Amino acid sequence: MTSAYFSGSSEAGPRSAGKILGAARTVLSQQGYPGLTIEAVAAEAGVGKSTIYRWWPNKEALIADALAQVFRADEIPDLGDTHAELRQAVDMTISNYDNDEMAASLPALAVGLLPNPDLMARFREVFLLRKRENIAVALRRAADRGDLPHDVDTDLVQDVWAGTILYRRLMTGEVLDEHLAEHLVKIVTASPEQFSHKSCP
Amino acid sequence: MTSAYFSGSSEAGPRSAGKILGAARTVLSQQGYPGLTIEAVAAEAGVGKSTIYRWWPNKEALIADALAQVFRADEIPDLGDTHAELRQAVDMTISNYDNDEMAASLPALAVGLLPNPDLMARFREVFLLRKRENIAVALRRAADRGDLPHDVDTDLVQDVWAGTILYRRLMTGEVLDEHLAEHLVKIVTASPEQFSHKSCP
Repeated sequence: MTSAYFSGSSEAGPRSAGKILGAARTVLSQQGYPGLTIEAVAAEAGVGKSTIYRWWPNKEALIADALAQVFRADEIPDLGDTHAELRQAVDMTISNYDNDEMAASLPALAVGLLPNPDLMARFREVFLLRKRENIAVALRRAADRGDLPHDVDTDLVQDVWAGTILYRRLMTGEVLDEHLAEHLVKIVTASPEQFSHKSCP
Repeated sequence: MTSAYFSGSSEAGPRSAGKILGAARTVLSQQGYPGLTIEAVAAEAGVGKSTIYRWWPNKEALIADALAQVFRADEIPDLGDTHAELRQAVDMTISNYDNDEMAASLPALAVGLLPNPDLMARFREVFLLRKRENIAVALRRAADRGDLPHDVDTDLVQDVWAGTILYRRLMTGEVLDEHLAEHLVKIVTASPEQFSHKSCP
């Protein structure tokens, strides 16, 4: 439970946190990011606006916590099979963006937080670091097996994966299907030397 | 000149269109996307708010036209050299996102337009189609040379390029340098079979 994370509070948040964050996701799916107001979330959750403002200073902080609860950052188990593990990493990334709320809200959130480096750093902590580290573990396991370079650039791999997926979802509107997932895995496994830190221009 | 494009008007826009769109970019770079108001653009341009509203129904339409004027969608000349042409395509894509206004505003715009399929279609027309078609010409030329598969999936190549670039710029904040540009070209040229329409899972 990461409630009130963006508020910077070390306490656990209000008792109604679960209800409020669930209401925020409901309003998000109905109204979209630009249309979401604290008023609408308060009404949906059946609490007063002041309860929300006590814990979340603004819309960005509330949405960040609401999305953090459903954002997947699973560990990838050792399956003894590089292709299967990387496919699991790609599938998890797709599932994080394969719904309108997340696809539209995460970039909108990032845009809203860009002018504020502290909040942007927290955003990256919540939505990028844990997922990226868990996927990096699988990539380094693949390197240990000799399937990827020993100095695999785990950031580049994940920028290509998450970037392509987010771009399709948000900008071109194309589907995120099995076909894409398989290509994304093979782009890495078919030319692993392109994902080595050493292969400089 | 694409002024008043998003308004759907067939006329050329107000005489002050250039001044208004330039003012919109100035305000965007100073205030960021979330902070931009029609009032601020009117003040910066030295025109009345009603002049702006007469041509652009809302903030999204105004920003779309302001960014369309500076978004690059150049043709890639035939250089007789696949690597050089693809590098030019990647460099153009990087230059489109390598400033705060564009990096933050394009995704924010897309998010704002997602609920409106007509405006989203126009957004794709203005910011994706021409650039993508011009780059596709270079990719098909590479295929004719035998450097890429004859049925090269020009959409997938560009989703990988633009996606990785946008994601780095917006989400991770990493630099968009020569190193990245070279990797993005080689990801395609080093495993071209992964960018063939035929290579199904």
